[in-house]
Amino acid sequence: MSRRYDSKTTTFSQEGRLYQVEYALEAINNANLTVGLLCDSGVILAADKPISTKLLDTGKINEKLYKLDSHMFCAVAGLTADATVLINMCKLYAQRHRYTYGEAQNVEEHVVQICDLKQSYTQFGGLRPFGVSFLFAGWDRNLGFQLYHTDPSGNYSGWKATAIGHNSQQAQSLLRQEWKEGLTVDEALHLAVKVLTKSMDSTVPKADKLEVGILWKGTSGTMDPMVEMISESKVADILANVAAQSTTKGSEAPHTL
Amino acid sequence: MSRRYDSKTTTFSQEGRLYQVEYALEAINNANLTVGLLCDSGVILAADKPISTKLLDTGKINEKLYKLDSHMFCAVAGLTADATVLINMCKLYAQRHRYTYGEAQNVEEHVVQICDLKQSYTQFGGLRPFGVSFLFAGWDRNLGFQLYHTDPSGNYSGWKATAIGHNSQQAQSLLRQEWKEGLTVDEALHLAVKVLTKSMDSTVPKADKLEVGILWKGTSGTMDPMVEMISESKVADILANVAAQSTTKGSEAPHTL
Amino acid sequence: MSRRYDSKTTTFSQEGRLYQVEYALEAINNANLTVGLLCDSGVILAADKPISTKLLDTGKINEKLYKLDSHMFCAVAGLTADATVLINMCKLYAQRHRYTYGEAQNVEEHVVQICDLKQSYTQFGGLRPFGVSFLFAGWDRNLGFQLYHTDPSGNYSGWKATAIGHNSQQAQSLLRQEWKEGLTVDEALHLAVKVLTKSMDSTVPKADKLEVGILWKGTSGTMDPMVEMISESKVADILANVAAQSTTKGSEAPHTL
Amino acid sequence: MSRRYDSKTTTFSQEGRLYQVEYALEAINNANLTVGLLCDSGVILAADKPISTKLLDTGKINEKLYKLDSHMFCAVAGLTADATVLINMCKLYAQRHRYTYGEAQNVEEHVVQICDLKQSYTQFGGLRPFGVSFLFAGWDRNLGFQLYHTDPSGNYSGWKATAIGHNSQQAQSLLRQEWKEGLTVDEALHLAVKVLTKSMDSTVPKADKLEVGILWKGTSGTMDPMVEMISESKVADILANVAAQSTTKGSEAPHTL
Amino acid sequence: MSRRYDSKTTTFSQEGRLYQVEYALEAINNANLTVGLLCDSGVILAADKPISTKLLDTGKINEKLYKLDSHMFCAVAGLTADATVLINMCKLYAQRHRYTYGEAQNVEEHVVQICDLKQSYTQFGGLRPFGVSFLFAGWDRNLGFQLYHTDPSGNYSGWKATAIGHNSQQAQSLLRQEWKEGLTVDEALHLAVKVLTKSMDSTVPKADKLEVGILWKGTSGTMDPMVEMISESKVADILANVAAQSTTKGSEAPHTL
Amino acid sequence: MSRRYDSKTTTFSQEGRLYQVEYALEAINNANLTVGLLCDSGVILAADKPISTKLLDTGKINEKLYKLDSHMFCAVAGLTADATVLINMCKLYAQRHRYTYGEAQNVEEHVVQICDLKQSYTQFGGLRPFGVSFLFAGWDRNLGFQLYHTDPSGNYSGWKATAIGHNSQQAQSLLRQEWKEGLTVDEALHLAVKVLTKSMDSTVPKADKLEVGILWKGTSGTMDPMVEMISESKVADILANVAAQSTTKGSEAPHTL
Amino acid sequence: MSRRYDSKTTTFSQEGRLYQVEYALEAINNANLTVGLLCDSGVILAADKPISTKLLDTGKINEKLYKLDSHMFCAVAGLTADATVLINMCKLYAQRHRYTYGEAQNVEEHVVQICDLKQSYTQFGGLRPFGVSFLFAGWDRNLGFQLYHTDPSGNYSGWKATAIGHNSQQAQSLLRQEWKEGLTVDEALHLAVKVLTKSMDSTVPKADKLEVGILWKGTSGTMDPMVEMISESKVADILANVAAQSTTKGSEAPHTL
Repeated sequence: MSRRYDSKTTTFSQEGRLYQVEYALEAINNANLTVGLLCDSGVILAADKPISTKLLDTGKINEKLYKLDSHMFCAVAGLTADATVLINMCKLYAQRHRYTYGEAQNVEEHVVQICDLKQSYTQFGGLRPFGVSFLFAGWDRNLGFQLYHTDPSGNYSGWKATAIGHNSQQAQSLLRQEWKEGLTVDEALHLAVKVLTKSMDSTVPKADKLEVGILWKGTSGTMDPMVEMISESKVADILANVAAQSTTKGSEAPHTL
Repeated sequence: MSRRYDSKTTTFSQEGRLYQVEYALEAINNANLTVGLLCDSGVILAADKPISTKLLDTGKINEKLYKLDSHMFCAVAGLTADATVLINMCKLYAQRHRYTYGEAQNVEEHVVQICDLKQSYTQFGGLRPFGVSFLFAGWDRNLGFQLYHTDPSGNYSGWKATAIGHNSQQAQSLLRQEWKEGLTVDEALHLAVKVLTKSMDSTVPKADKLEVGILWKGTSGTMDPMVEMISESKVADILANVAAQSTTKGSEAPHTL
Repeated sequence: MSRRYDSKTTTFSQEGRLYQVEYALEAINNANLTVGLLCDSGVILAADKPISTKLLDTGKINEKLYKLDSHMFCAVAGLTADATVLINMCKLYAQRHRYTYGEAQNVEEHVVQICDLKQSYTQFGGLRPFGVSFLFAGWDRNLGFQLYHTDPSGNYSGWKATAIGHNSQQAQSLLRQEWKEGLTVDEALHLAVKVLTKSMDSTVPKADKLEVGILWKGTSGTMDPMVEMISESKVADILANVAAQSTTKGSEAPHTL
Repeated sequence: MSRRYDSKTTTFSQEGRLYQVEYALEAINNANLTVGLLCDSGVILAADKPISTKLLDTGKINEKLYKLDSHMFCAVAGLTADATVLINMCKLYAQRHRYTYGEAQNVEEHVVQICDLKQSYTQFGGLRPFGVSFLFAGWDRNLGFQLYHTDPSGNYSGWKATAIGHNSQQAQSLLRQEWKEGLTVDEALHLAVKVLTKSMDSTVPKADKLEVGILWKGTSGTMDPMVEMISESKVADILANVAAQSTTKGSEAPHTL
Repeated sequence: MSRRYDSKTTTFSQEGRLYQVEYALEAINNANLTVGLLCDSGVILAADKPISTKLLDTGKINEKLYKLDSHMFCAVAGLTADATVLINMCKLYAQRHRYTYGEAQNVEEHVVQICDLKQSYTQFGGLRPFGVSFLFAGWDRNLGFQLYHTDPSGNYSGWKATAIGHNSQQAQSLLRQEWKEGLTVDEALHLAVKVLTKSMDSTVPKADKLEVGILWKGTSGTMDPMVEMISESKVADILANVAAQSTTKGSEAPHTL
Repeated sequence: MSRRYDSKTTTFSQEGRLYQVEYALEAINNANLTVGLLCDSGVILAADKPISTKLLDTGKINEKLYKLDSHMFCAVAGLTADATVLINMCKLYAQRHRYTYGEAQNVEEHVVQICDLKQSYTQFGGLRPFGVSFLFAGWDRNLGFQLYHTDPSGNYSGWKATAIGHNSQQAQSLLRQEWKEGLTVDEALHLAVKVLTKSMDSTVPKADKLEVGILWKGTSGTMDPMVEMISESKVADILANVAAQSTTKGSEAPHTL
Repeated sequence: MSRRYDSKTTTFSQEGRLYQVEYALEAINNANLTVGLLCDSGVILAADKPISTKLLDTGKINEKLYKLDSHMFCAVAGLTADATVLINMCKLYAQRHRYTYGEAQNVEEHVVQICDLKQSYTQFGGLRPFGVSFLFAGWDRNLGFQLYHTDPSGNYSGWKATAIGHNSQQAQSLLRQEWKEGLTVDEALHLAVKVLTKSMDSTVPKADKLEVGILWKGTSGTMDPMVEMISESKVADILANVAAQSTTKGSEAPHTL
């Protein structure tokens, strides 16, 4: 029925839709779940890693989280090779800004730059959209901690907490129930892991199946927030905590970082 | 029936129509309602924001209104990513004019520049039209306060009051009934909000669902008009006022800004 | 039947026709009626404006007539956005000629330049023809007052009086009956308005529905002819005069400008 | 049947034909008749003008004959806008040759240049052939008076007398009967007009329906031949003469120029 | 059956054939017959000219034979406009070689250059092959007198005697019977004309229907061979001779040049 | 069913898949089996060579393993000609890095560069993906010995042991059973050959059918690891050893290098 | 069945095949047989020439063997015009290497360069593969005498003896039976001619139907091997020898060069 319109990014359907962009979104709905949320003094991104076997060398590359600059990192969902290309562009944009102006790039400015690139792939002939969505976590002097979502169309939006990928709707509804303003870092980490484990298809995952990162000032209190990857043992602690709570729902005693 | 002609911007149909441009207009008819109107000493743009959830970080980005220069701002309807690209071009054109000539760009000249860009995407192969309509509000020394509407074909027209997006026909008919020359700023704000609330599908919206901006000299009387976003509390006041009036239709006592 | 040949400007049909150019002409046949005629000391263009509502800000932009240089103006019929692009080119060509040679461009030379541009859009792949016809009114030292018609194919022709747009055939037949050499400016204005009102679908139009311009030396007798837009009140006078005459067909007393 | 091959200039049919070039020739067969012939001291081109109405301003532009340089002029048949583009190129080639070498371009060299341009439009993708045939009349020191015919394929050939356009076959057969070496200028003018009037669909045409030009040394005997357009009154004389003869077939007394 | 593969030069058929190149060859099989042969002290090219009428000005352009340089000339068969383009390139290559190296270009080197150009039109998208075959006759210090045949694919081959165009197979079989090493110039001219007349569809042709050229040192014995076109009276002599012999087959007394 | 989407890299299917990339993977599944694994002090790549006949000159070119730099080598599976192009790029990237920075390129950086190139061939029109997968074996100061797998989409991943090509799934399952951390070089060579022989369709292969390479410090202990190809006699020893073990499964006595 | 995938080089079929490349191979299977083989002190290429008639001037161009440099020559099979283009590139690469580095290019390096060019024509849109296979015979200081085979995909492989073209499978099987290491030059020439004559469709060919070349030091023992074409009389001797042997199979007394 919609056959005539759906094979090019340069063709609107009769209802004003761009089917190629919508099909690219399908690639993202099949990707692993990723959660992002703001807390009182940081931004957290947590992701479910792709199925790993004993032989995959997971120690060397972060599968889902990428550091872009000292004040920004991101999580990706979709076609990995497309993501690698865009992440290279992100790093380039951030470094070029630092080099030209001598200071870190504003987070939204950065997001707009990468979204304009994405948009151009939906309007010119002989191209396909990037099959990638991002969650950008960043901090700048103007707007503090920020969390953005971008999709293959080049749209972006600011969030307090959101999720992308497989079962993201279930995760978003959990976040709507449990996220509130002013969460401490520990509470937020606990919530991120909880949402991931409850929304994944598998039963309780192991710590090496999750990847968690945070942008904060840390315990030592640095000048500006820094990106920090949470260690596997720490993730295991949180997982245990989440598991404990889900049995004894009353007590909510988050562990200390 | 019209199948042969409707997949390219470079093909006229037998009746001399460009179907791709018409389909791009469909994308706009599905966008949220936006209203623009002139008053005695300013121009007002008011928009219905997309559905927002608790977790959307609305404090950081204006969803529908964009400031382009000190003397111009605009409202958009259609594909957001396309709009972002065009708004960047708007800002560039405005700044480039200031830099080259040392003065603000005439509003119509600005509108023509952006419309020429839009038109080119309807005539060359391998492209699709921009799926975006704008309401431009501006002021210049020659023509004073101005309100323009542009569409994906690159057409533009000057209006005293108009509306774009979902249910825009209903809003336009309301404006034809109630708009008159010489409205004060307060009366105009009242009318803009009234038209929005009456034309939206939802029942009475909350203040955070509306976004209202004005280009005027303000209460302090600056040299040249400036763009000012109406605060959420102010919008709430107007909303209450509109609600009151719709019960007691007789008294029309606009509140003071 | 003609299916194979009609979707590209780069394909002749079996009978040697270019269907895309013919379809572009359809866009013009749907446009509002425009009339042009020569008189003893000037050229007149008169147009029926698109349907205007109370809220359209007609004071700011001329809908159908555009001044190109001090010695040339034009009327357009067809796709407005395409026209805007071509009118910009016209102004550029005229100014560039003035700048390079220090004198006004010959009218036919100007028309040929814009027609060559139009023609190129009918011969190269990945383009569509401009969906616009023009009436050019101009004056130069060689050929005096001139009136040209151009169409989407890039063809042009010189006329003493002609009409384009909706019902143009009816208007042309009226002109053939009533136009004669040596009309005074007042007689010509009267004739232009009469042809417009008799050929429009609506009943007697109001003055703000018509747009009339003239290229002449004016009453003060300038050195070279200048473009002058006829004021709305003047148009109203002529309309009244035309209405009076159509009842009392005998007396033909044109009013003075 | 020939469907697969006929929509591109870049595709040979199974029989080695280029259908697009053949279809372009159709555009020429529908054009008005044009006749060219050599006489003892000149070359004559005579054309049937398109239907003209009272309002067409024929005084300003030559419809079918174009002067290219002092020693060359041409007649066109086919798409007028395509012809205008090619005639501009002709003038450019001729002037560029004069400027570079300080002398008039050889006629055949000129014809080859324009034919190479035409040929390129039959071999490269995304283009269509020029829908125009020319009769070139010229003189140079090497070959004297010359008459060439070119067609949309880029072919050219030298003739003593030939015709193109509607009913050209009938005109050519008349020329074969009546043209002979050593015609005087008056005899040749008489023959050209006779062939035109006998081959046109209409009955006896008026003088303003014909356009006749000659390249000769004139009566005053200039150094080099010059292009001269025959005045309408002269054409009327010849027409009368032709009409007289066709009644009294015996006497063949050509009038003097 | 072969439908899928035959409309582009960039597509091999299932059997590894390029149909567009084969179809271009069809254009050549419909061209007039041309014969080339080597003799003891020269190379001869002889061609059947296209049907000429009384009015065709054959005195001015050689229809089928073109001189390329003092030591090379060629005969063409196929699309004339394509041939004109390639012959211009030939002249350019030959002159450029003379200019750069101060000596005549080797014949085979010249043929390879033009064949590489032809080949490129069979391998790149958006182009069609040149619909032209050539017989190149040339002389250089290395290889003496040479005769080459090229076709639309860009293939070339050296021959002692060959024919191209309509009925070329019949002509080739005649040449195989009658050509032998060491023919004198007169014998060779006699043979060329004989082969032409016997292979043409028409009965005995007149001298103005044939075009014959020779590259030789002439009777005066110049330093290097030169191209010489055989005069129409000489051709008539040979024709008479051929006619005489075909009646009295015994005596073979070639006339002197 | 999926017909509409599967012929271009620039078209997503309705489920968000890129069929051309998936079809390119098929080319790899038909390629010969290749195995890669890490051991305690090196990386090993081992490949099954294509069917060789007596006349193939195998002594001169390595069929499946290519040295890229002193610290990197790779194995390829898929279209050989595509691989040659990419391997040239690899060598260029590695040398350019050495030249610019005066030190060896990081292995992952190298892999990302080549993967970005691969990705671009899946997103732009008029191209097809490279039909090649690689196993990269490398060493750098940061991450030590590394083994990467890349595929036609431009994805890459780090592994401790993996296999690509025909029957790669069987080989991977064998590796999951038998590979463990801390294998010595001899044990690893033994395992690589064992996995190859057990997964190949043929019965026990000869030594010249296998190609084995290792990146290690060697027995002499060089400063940095070097690439070393295992000699045919050594491979024969390992093959014998593997054959012996498979009969007497108890004793696992790896031979010394 | 495979219809959708087989008309472009930029489209993989569902099984990961490139049909256009496979169809190009068909063009080669129809070409004349060519044989190449290594002997103890040289490389031999021998080819069956295309059908030659008495009139073909075979003395001037080598039909199937081309000398590329003093240390390399090649035999071609497939489309001749494509081959000519590639051979020009070969000569250019070889000369450019000599000019830049002052020494002969390594044979494999040369083969890779030409294969990369071939590969690019299988991956980019708007092109077709080169329909040519080569046998390259060369010598360099590193690897001595070498024989390579390349095909339209850009693949290449080193051989001790191989054959391409029509009936190449039969020839390869003969070579597998009779070729052995350490053949003398005379034995190798004898074998090459024998394989050709036994695999050709025709009965015993004449010497002028075969073309044989060798790269060796010759009898005089030059410094480096040189390319030498075997004279027709020598080929006749070998042919006689082969014919003699096939009757008296016992005695194998190769003649001396």
